Amino acid sequence: MTLDVKKESLRIHQERRGKIEVFGTMPLRNEEDLSIAYTPGVAAPCLEIAKNKDDVYKYTMKGKSIAVITNGTAVLGLGNIGPEAGLPVVEGKAILHKKFANIDAIPIGIDSIDPDDIINTIKNIAPGFGGIHLEDIKAPECFYIEEKLKEKLDIPIYHDDQHGTAISVLAGLYNALKIVNKSISEIKVVINGAGASGIATAKLLIVAGVRHLVLCDIRGALIEGDKTLNESQQKIAKITNRSFEKGELKDVIKNKDVFIGVSDGNVLTKEDVARMNKDSIVFALANPTPEITPDEAKAGGARVTATGRSDFPNQINNVLVFPGIFKGVLEVRAKDICDEMGIAAAKGIADLIKDDELSEDYIVPSVFNKDVCNAVASAVTIIARERGLARA
Amino acid sequence: MTLDVKKESLRIHQERRGKIEVFGTMPLRNEEDLSIAYTPGVAAPCLEIAKNKDDVYKYTMKGKSIAVITNGTAVLGLGNIGPEAGLPVVEGKAILHKKFANIDAIPIGIDSIDPDDIINTIKNIAPGFGGIHLEDIKAPECFYIEEKLKEKLDIPIYHDDQHGTAISVLAGLYNALKIVNKSISEIKVVINGAGASGIATAKLLIVAGVRHLVLCDIRGALIEGDKTLNESQQKIAKITNRSFEKGELKDVIKNKDVFIGVSDGNVLTKEDVARMNKDSIVFALANPTPEITPDEAKAGGARVTATGRSDFPNQINNVLVFPGIFKGVLEVRAKDICDEMGIAAAKGIADLIKDDELSEDYIVPSVFNKDVCNAVASAVTIIARERGLARA
Repeated sequence: MTLDVKKESLRIHQERRGKIEVFGTMPLRNEEDLSIAYTPGVAAPCLEIAKNKDDVYKYTMKGKSIAVITNGTAVLGLGNIGPEAGLPVVEGKAILHKKFANIDAIPIGIDSIDPDDIINTIKNIAPGFGGIHLEDIKAPECFYIEEKLKEKLDIPIYHDDQHGTAISVLAGLYNALKIVNKSISEIKVVINGAGASGIATAKLLIVAGVRHLVLCDIRGALIEGDKTLNESQQKIAKITNRSFEKGELKDVIKNKDVFIGVSDGNVLTKEDVARMNKDSIVFALANPTPEITPDEAKAGGARVTATGRSDFPNQINNVLVFPGIFKGVLEVRAKDICDEMGIAAAKGIADLIKDDELSEDYIVPSVFNKDVCNAVASAVTIIARERGLARA
Repeated sequence: MTLDVKKESLRIHQERRGKIEVFGTMPLRNEEDLSIAYTPGVAAPCLEIAKNKDDVYKYTMKGKSIAVITNGTAVLGLGNIGPEAGLPVVEGKAILHKKFANIDAIPIGIDSIDPDDIINTIKNIAPGFGGIHLEDIKAPECFYIEEKLKEKLDIPIYHDDQHGTAISVLAGLYNALKIVNKSISEIKVVINGAGASGIATAKLLIVAGVRHLVLCDIRGALIEGDKTLNESQQKIAKITNRSFEKGELKDVIKNKDVFIGVSDGNVLTKEDVARMNKDSIVFALANPTPEITPDEAKAGGARVTATGRSDFPNQINNVLVFPGIFKGVLEVRAKDICDEMGIAAAKGIADLIKDDELSEDYIVPSVFNKDVCNAVASAVTIIARERGLARA
């Protein structure tokens, strides 16, 4: 980030005392108002909810509110910096939820690194929330935490580092494939980075029809049976890399159609890209420094490039996804978020770009395109209804 | 509550979808705004806080935000109705914090009745909050929960059912004593109700100088050594009722100067009041039905009466207390709330009524008196500084 951005960010965070403010929705001008919102009137909704727990959606903020929760163990590219230092990010996600989906999102920092303790804490504070947005929780714990919370709670659980990345990548990929005229079932994909984002993206691409996919990390291609991998990596290794490719990224990238980087800056060279198949697609999503710049990737022969940054064309950013996902699930009071919602959401985002607008430099809509959130929400509600996950 | 209040309360809670809304404090109009509030700019405050944890007060909402937490085990007079049904109350407290003290209070319902589990959950979610307001948690668990949280956390812990009642009662008592011209160290007090409010009020009155105080519950006077009492009652019985009075309320009330009811409606008769000392003070605070109506109490000889209701003179209500307490502790970033703050706050509230305004029907200021919050906050900050509890 530039010095100016840094200075202005610190200045405004301090001036505004964080990014979230709370307001009341009811008047409190006089005794009469007080008797409605507070005592004795407040007993009326309490009693209704006591009689029928589902009325909590009717009389409280639950139906329009989610918690955005981090324990600060994998914040941006900064690593484990703790729940306090993770708060600016969850406050940031909260204001984006408000801006794009009119959701009342509450930022919560959790002071624990024990997965079962985190699960229990989130389960305990869930009554007031219509959904849980997990953020910046390190892998592999994040997978276990999400899985267990899905079992324990009847509200949607969503880990943005996983699903936000996976869905926005898939949206970009759908349109990139139109440009290069390749089929999702035929392409060969390499994903670099085998943490939360990489594993979740691999999973979603496979459900979406990708058949040839290799996951790499700093030690090279993930191969089934490698006992040095963590549990989540061992699991994903069983359904990826079916030709048992070995070697580092620079070896594995040979003859691939698509590179997806969710790793570190400057790990890919134009020579690496040159070893890919013709009309290659290079999504270099590391922030702030991409795995390779779009110019370099194109110099290596890439036809379509994307990054996570707003100062290059084709910004693939989770903000395309998370507000709409929660808008959708809250609208139909979905009890869960499923892969099919992710795929439908990705299609919904991709389809916002008409065929005659589509170009190498325009495969994903702007994050400020107001139709994005509604397209995602609509896709989510349709799938929720089809799959019997909707409760309203 | 009247049918109209009930209907209007349900209508507006449903229409507004609860009582709390969340807003962003920063602009999000364009890419530049996004680069400040979100990526990459958000990394700047994250890194500052990672370097110096205390900067969480500088760059996040922590310094102006508290959690209002219930597990729904003692909601109003409704008993254990669960965390969902308890939410309208904590949302209500949250809007009152905003209205009177401009505090951003987050309502949280906790799905647990296990004290240690509740303590651990609150400890875990504390990083983002500058204080914890506990609400509607049943006795005796509430005492243990508050005590342990005070040990574990370096932010102020406050249980409104205890301290809000105790402090507002003491405020009213200070002024009532001026009217009847009795000294706090000489009066004989009976408190009816030995739950959270009664025990906390007894404790605070003793610290404030009351020497003769008997606590009663439905089984009569609490006496030291009674093994049928719960742990908190056994503890308070050691420092109250030093003349070992026995019997029910109607016996114990004889020759008392002050009755404080935090129990149930209609448990006191004018004949009971008639057995009190001359110029008696009767605070009948049960809601919505007081232990005795002011008219009946006066018919029995009471000189000063108060209730919890806004439709009688002298409404003793916690809303006089909690916004100012948290305004004060947040202002100086106090690490704890102590009894002396409560006593100073009560004096601050009482002193808002000038001697020439003071009357039997005007011993506490209106809850809408804007000076109340500042008087309480100012009292709290002074004590915090004196006692070395202030950190800013």
